[in-house]
Amino acid sequence: MRTAVYPGSFDPITMGHLDIIMRASKLFDKVIVGVLHNVEKKGLFTPEERCEMIEQLIEEYDNIEVRSFEGLLVDFMKEVDSNIIVKGLRIGIDFDYEIQMAQLNKKLSKNDIETVLMMTNTNYSYISSSSVREILHFNGDIRGLVPDIIYDDIYKKVGRDGGKME
Amino acid sequence: MRTAVYPGSFDPITMGHLDIIMRASKLFDKVIVGVLHNVEKKGLFTPEERCEMIEQLIEEYDNIEVRSFEGLLVDFMKEVDSNIIVKGLRIGIDFDYEIQMAQLNKKLSKNDIETVLMMTNTNYSYISSSSVREILHFNGDIRGLVPDIIYDDIYKKVGRDGGKME
Amino acid sequence: MRTAVYPGSFDPITMGHLDIIMRASKLFDKVIVGVLHNVEKKGLFTPEERCEMIEQLIEEYDNIEVRSFEGLLVDFMKEVDSNIIVKGLRIGIDFDYEIQMAQLNKKLSKNDIETVLMMTNTNYSYISSSSVREILHFNGDIRGLVPDIIYDDIYKKVGRDGGKME
Amino acid sequence: MRTAVYPGSFDPITMGHLDIIMRASKLFDKVIVGVLHNVEKKGLFTPEERCEMIEQLIEEYDNIEVRSFEGLLVDFMKEVDSNIIVKGLRIGIDFDYEIQMAQLNKKLSKNDIETVLMMTNTNYSYISSSSVREILHFNGDIRGLVPDIIYDDIYKKVGRDGGKME
Amino acid sequence: MRTAVYPGSFDPITMGHLDIIMRASKLFDKVIVGVLHNVEKKGLFTPEERCEMIEQLIEEYDNIEVRSFEGLLVDFMKEVDSNIIVKGLRIGIDFDYEIQMAQLNKKLSKNDIETVLMMTNTNYSYISSSSVREILHFNGDIRGLVPDIIYDDIYKKVGRDGGKME
Amino acid sequence: MRTAVYPGSFDPITMGHLDIIMRASKLFDKVIVGVLHNVEKKGLFTPEERCEMIEQLIEEYDNIEVRSFEGLLVDFMKEVDSNIIVKGLRIGIDFDYEIQMAQLNKKLSKNDIETVLMMTNTNYSYISSSSVREILHFNGDIRGLVPDIIYDDIYKKVGRDGGKME
Repeated sequence: MRTAVYPGSFDPITMGHLDIIMRASKLFDKVIVGVLHNVEKKGLFTPEERCEMIEQLIEEYDNIEVRSFEGLLVDFMKEVDSNIIVKGLRIGIDFDYEIQMAQLNKKLSKNDIETVLMMTNTNYSYISSSSVREILHFNGDIRGLVPDIIYDDIYKKVGRDGGKME
Repeated sequence: MRTAVYPGSFDPITMGHLDIIMRASKLFDKVIVGVLHNVEKKGLFTPEERCEMIEQLIEEYDNIEVRSFEGLLVDFMKEVDSNIIVKGLRIGIDFDYEIQMAQLNKKLSKNDIETVLMMTNTNYSYISSSSVREILHFNGDIRGLVPDIIYDDIYKKVGRDGGKME
Repeated sequence: MRTAVYPGSFDPITMGHLDIIMRASKLFDKVIVGVLHNVEKKGLFTPEERCEMIEQLIEEYDNIEVRSFEGLLVDFMKEVDSNIIVKGLRIGIDFDYEIQMAQLNKKLSKNDIETVLMMTNTNYSYISSSSVREILHFNGDIRGLVPDIIYDDIYKKVGRDGGKME
Repeated sequence: MRTAVYPGSFDPITMGHLDIIMRASKLFDKVIVGVLHNVEKKGLFTPEERCEMIEQLIEEYDNIEVRSFEGLLVDFMKEVDSNIIVKGLRIGIDFDYEIQMAQLNKKLSKNDIETVLMMTNTNYSYISSSSVREILHFNGDIRGLVPDIIYDDIYKKVGRDGGKME
Repeated sequence: MRTAVYPGSFDPITMGHLDIIMRASKLFDKVIVGVLHNVEKKGLFTPEERCEMIEQLIEEYDNIEVRSFEGLLVDFMKEVDSNIIVKGLRIGIDFDYEIQMAQLNKKLSKNDIETVLMMTNTNYSYISSSSVREILHFNGDIRGLVPDIIYDDIYKKVGRDGGKME
Repeated sequence: MRTAVYPGSFDPITMGHLDIIMRASKLFDKVIVGVLHNVEKKGLFTPEERCEMIEQLIEEYDNIEVRSFEGLLVDFMKEVDSNIIVKGLRIGIDFDYEIQMAQLNKKLSKNDIETVLMMTNTNYSYISSSSVREILHFNGDIRGLVPDIIYDDIYKKVGRDGGKME
């Protein structure tokens, strides 16, 4: 059985992230969404909130689960017994960063870990968690940028009314 | 009448920025230089100082004006009744970022806003506001990096003597 | 009145090209689609056929016209009395090429010609005339890659039946 | 069972190609190396010779096979009943091309085909089939660029003595 | 005599940095490793510690020395009477940044300073000081990422046991 | 004594090439301009003509010479007893290609050959030999793209009148 890990901050999860998760779940027997908890960088949402949102999106899928982790990705990979990392690529610039991380993780795992890159759906290629956070900050509307299922939940969590801008 | 907005931090305006403004003013009936006021990030110059410097450079041009704004660019676009964003491109790396922002702004405006990219003059392609600030910080000479008209003004504002390095 | 030229081979015109033409026609008073006739490189379609296809797509638009040209773009610009070139950008790699051409055309025109870059709609960013030709060559279906209006016409011109693959 | 196709010209296969094949064979149940036969472009080696060389390298691996194909990749995918394309990425520039092809193949297959990108081992990232051919042309030594097993075979096929340069 | 400066933060020095230093020392008569002391950004190691580590690595080489500096690189260049800057390039993305800095330094030095780019050894292209710091932070093992000679020293300096992970 | 080779087709030499040659001649004791004679690709100018033009430009410089070569660059390097290759970089896209060639040449020379990249002067970054040839083909004016000294010579060699366009 091949288990892949799709790591990220998911602060919050976007349409682009969800698309990669769904497609990856067809390529591998199991996909674990790994939510990085960076203790030194306060996110907009807590790791628990981020996992909670992802849970809502994947609950119908038997071979997808979500877990948060701290520390190095290679250590998390060992913990969940996976050696396949899935990453989504948005643009050329991402690639340069991802190739570095992939080589580094390969090295740190003594060649055990393989990184597989999937291309972000062009419909979502302009979406990033940071732009979602910025739009939320200025009270803009994020409909279409995040999955509909968690749309209201996001506004509730940040204490705003999702319908305000319309 | 077609009005274009050229948004940025302009902290401070550089030769590269000015070149784009001048060229854009020939392509569109009116160009509004939009000075982003990011309340969470203290700049070297206040938004008022930045606008003031730009005013000095454009005062002879009837179809160019400067305004500061807070919040989302798409909201500012509505406010000034423009649907054309002009951006200057310095290098390939800029493009990857700009394409994201352009798509995002198109989405947020329901396809109404068009982003037009102009290439920075190769003579100025190495100049950025952050490098100007760094040089000022270490008391270096920024002649040629910023328009001559505001050269002395910049040193006055940061409390230094512009002729010091010569 | 500002007239822009959108130059290319258009062998054949794609959905991406058409999208740029339509959007450019809102930015400028007039858009001339310039079909490059490269006498040393036989295309799949003749310049006349390419212009004919474009004519079908723009006939309702008063401020768009199509013309073929040979030789240097800067000479064509003079001929049609325009100093604005519009180009569509698909990816970072395009940019590196376009910046060269833009600078070169600026130089050849003694700083008179301005190149304006518009970003290809992400829905069409993967489409190129050469991939359309290759699919045609192998009898594949190009529906969705080229405008519907000229779909049948293209198969007729290359002597194949457009419905074949369905 | 998940079958992936690794397509290419393999004229000839390099160390970089072989590395991708081996790693892909661990990610998927079966890997088919698809040797593109471009009838309009005479290669250095015939498609049969290229397949023959690959056969020697994979004969111990039960889940890898090699097949040549003509025409569109999407048609070959259908023929071998696979919907996963594996591609190796060498540098940022490759990515821009691969993202186009991936999107195109997704479109042509009505969203059925997924392209997965793996990063070329940095030790082989500078090797391409065309550089191998050029070195062969000038009677240089390709040891280390192609798998040792086919080293002599390559020189035999191009009618040269592999030991000549040492 | 031609003296080149290889500037950086070296917080800490990596295998990639050392490789560039060694290769640069063959191209120029003398190489000065310039350790930037950014007073506004606390590093993991003090500038003295960073210089100390580099000293250990270069002590056998007569034409290499290490010095720390504050402020603008162009001022440091004047101080050590050098007009050649050596930079290591890891990936395309680095280049875009380096070309800006190179042009800026050329301008600030009135065309006197030349920047020479050397390509990072592909074996080390994935290593950066920041990834080394992150691995140290999470108590991972950095063997192979930094020169063996300073391996124990690094763990001693950050108060950890280098053998911990094995 | 350090000798560097600056290889290329130089068909014909441009302002950008000349700029690199002059700057490289200050970094190394001797610079050999290596004019590649590709027997399978007929150039606009013969290798002799290309060398002749370069000779006119470098005759006052004692430490620069020009030589043509066929075959692999690594063989030419051995012949002229140099292990330093100088290349000019125009844009990010060049880098991806140059890093491949540099690694390949390092491998082919058993780590002996070092490639040093210098950045093309931004004033000339848009100039390529192929664009010069295209402009000549369409009887355009190449003044400013090639060194003035060889301007008339180029038109004489291609059988045209250099003053025609003015």
